[in-house]
Amino acid sequence: MAVYTEVSDEDLAAFLAGYDIGALLSCKGIAEGVENSNFLLHTQAGFYILTLYEKRVDEADLPFFVGLMEHLARRGVTCPLPVHNRMGECLGRMAGRPAAIVTFLEGMWARKPDARQCAMVGETLAKFHAAGSDFPLSRPNSLSIGGWPALFQAAEARADEVLPGLAVTLATELSHLERHWPRGLPQGVIHADLFPDNVFFLSGELSGVIDFYFACVDAFAYDLAICLNAWCFEADASFNLTKGMAMLNGYERVRKLDDAEIEALPILSRGAALRFLLTRLVDWLNRPEGALVKPKDPIEYVKKLRFHQHATSARDYGLSR
Amino acid sequence: MAVYTEVSDEDLAAFLAGYDIGALLSCKGIAEGVENSNFLLHTQAGFYILTLYEKRVDEADLPFFVGLMEHLARRGVTCPLPVHNRMGECLGRMAGRPAAIVTFLEGMWARKPDARQCAMVGETLAKFHAAGSDFPLSRPNSLSIGGWPALFQAAEARADEVLPGLAVTLATELSHLERHWPRGLPQGVIHADLFPDNVFFLSGELSGVIDFYFACVDAFAYDLAICLNAWCFEADASFNLTKGMAMLNGYERVRKLDDAEIEALPILSRGAALRFLLTRLVDWLNRPEGALVKPKDPIEYVKKLRFHQHATSARDYGLSR
Repeated sequence: MAVYTEVSDEDLAAFLAGYDIGALLSCKGIAEGVENSNFLLHTQAGFYILTLYEKRVDEADLPFFVGLMEHLARRGVTCPLPVHNRMGECLGRMAGRPAAIVTFLEGMWARKPDARQCAMVGETLAKFHAAGSDFPLSRPNSLSIGGWPALFQAAEARADEVLPGLAVTLATELSHLERHWPRGLPQGVIHADLFPDNVFFLSGELSGVIDFYFACVDAFAYDLAICLNAWCFEADASFNLTKGMAMLNGYERVRKLDDAEIEALPILSRGAALRFLLTRLVDWLNRPEGALVKPKDPIEYVKKLRFHQHATSARDYGLSR
Repeated sequence: MAVYTEVSDEDLAAFLAGYDIGALLSCKGIAEGVENSNFLLHTQAGFYILTLYEKRVDEADLPFFVGLMEHLARRGVTCPLPVHNRMGECLGRMAGRPAAIVTFLEGMWARKPDARQCAMVGETLAKFHAAGSDFPLSRPNSLSIGGWPALFQAAEARADEVLPGLAVTLATELSHLERHWPRGLPQGVIHADLFPDNVFFLSGELSGVIDFYFACVDAFAYDLAICLNAWCFEADASFNLTKGMAMLNGYERVRKLDDAEIEALPILSRGAALRFLLTRLVDWLNRPEGALVKPKDPIEYVKKLRFHQHATSARDYGLSR
C-alpha cells in the first residue's frame, strides 16, 4: 500500500487542465502498488488511475513503460491505456514528480489463484510476448543474472540474520547459476513481475494486466519461470503440479516453447527464485523504521529455490512432453 | 492511509451476495482513514465505500454511527448513505470484522482551506447540529473532559520526550480546564472530528461530510471549537482571524450561539486543543515500529493551545458581537 507524495488541489487542477477528461470529481489515494503513488481519479469523463513515479523508478525508463502499455493495449493485451494530454504526451510532471494518467481497469486480483486462472495467465503471458515483438524501444533487465552479484553483496553480511546459513546458500546458488545460465534463448519484451496482484479477473475471465515497471527485454522462458514461481506454489511452499501444467499448457496454446527453452526451465526457475529472494532480502534488511510498506518475506523464496534445486526437467513443472 | 484487513475474493463475494447492488467489478483499498479499513467498490449498480471496522472502534457504537449517517443524509446533510442489505440491515460481518457499505461521495478535501471554505464548514456544522436534533440514539463523548485524565496519565511519564516541560504544561492545563469547564451548554449530536480531510468540496461548494466515528452527544459549541482548531490556523500555528470570522458567521447563519456559548468559546477551544494534543501524544508515544499509519504531530496542538490560553473572548476568534 502506498501513497508517498501528497497532492495539493492546485497541483492536481493544474495538471488536469492539460488533459481533455473534464472536471475533477474525486481523487483518492489507493493502497496498492509498492513503487509509486497511485490515485483513483474520477472526472466527468470517467475513472482513471493517476500515478506519480517515485524515486525507485528511473525517469529515463518511463517512455519504455508507458509506451509499452499503449503498444500492448492496442494489440489486444488488456492493460491500462495511457491517456494523452492536449500536447499529445502521455507523461507529465506533478508535485515535482513524473506523472501519468491511465484508464481504470475493472477486475479483482486473485488472492488464491486456481489452476484455471494459472492457465489464463500462461495464455496471456504468451500473448504479451507475441504482442511485444514489434515494440520499438528496448530496456535491459537490470535484475537478471548480471545484477544479482551486487544484490548479494548488499545483503551478504546480514543474510544470516534472516536465516542461519543463508549467505552460503546464496553464494553457492549464484555461482551455480553463473556457470549454467542459458544464453541465446528466444527473447523479447517480458513483463518480469507478473505476480497475482498484477493480474485482474472479472466474471471468471482474465480482465487485464497492470504494473509494467519491471518490463524489459529478456528471455521469454525466464518470464514464464517468474510466473511459475509466483502462481504455482501453495502457501506451504509446495509446488502444485496441476497449476504448473495449466500454466505451461496455457502458454503453449499461443506460443510453443522450443527445445532449448524446455531444457532451461529448471535453471530459469532457480534464477527467478533467486532474483526475488535477493530483492526481498535487501528490502527486508533495509526496511526503514515506520515504513509505509511492509516488506515481503524473503524466506518464501528460499523454500521455492529449494524446490527448483531438485527439479531435473520441465516435466517437474507439469510440461507433458 | 490504511487497509488493515485483507479481504479474500470469497469473503467479498459472500458478503455482497447479501446486497442488491449487482456483481462486483472491482475493489481497491483506499489510502485514507486512520481507524478502519476502507475499500472503493465498483459494482454493476455504481460506486460504494466498503468499511471494515477495526479494533479501535467499539462494535456496540456502530448502530449509532451508521444510524446517524442515514438520519443526517435523509435530512439534507450530504454524507455517505448506508446501503441496506436484503435483510434490511446496514451492518454485517466480513473477514471477522463488522462491515458496512455506504454510497460513494464525490469531492475532494481541501489541503489548504480558505476563508470561504471555512464559512461553508461553519454553516454545514450548524445544519448538522440541527438535523441531529431528532436522532433517537445517544452516545457519550468519551474523549471530552472526563476522558482526558486517563490520556494524560498514559502519556505523562514520557511527554517530555516530545517537548521538554510538556508534562507540566498538560497537568496545569488539565487542572485549569477541570475548574472552568462549562456545564449546561446547549447540546445534541456533534461530529467531534470535522477536520479538513473529513469534508469534501466540489466545484467550489461543500459536497459532503464523512467519518462519523467520533460522533457523540456533547455541547454544540465544543464541536465549533474543534473546527476552529482544525480549520482556522495557518501552517505556522498563527490563528487566521478572517477564517475564524467566516466560520463563526457561517455557523450563525443557521444557528445563533447563545450568550453562554459565546462566553465559553475560549475555554472550549482550549479543551478541544488539549483533546487532540493528548490523543496525538499517546499515539505518538505508542507508535508501533513499522506502523502503516504515520502518527500526527502533537506539537501542532501545543502551539494552538498556547494561542487559546491567551484568548479572552469570542472576539479573539472573529465573532463580531
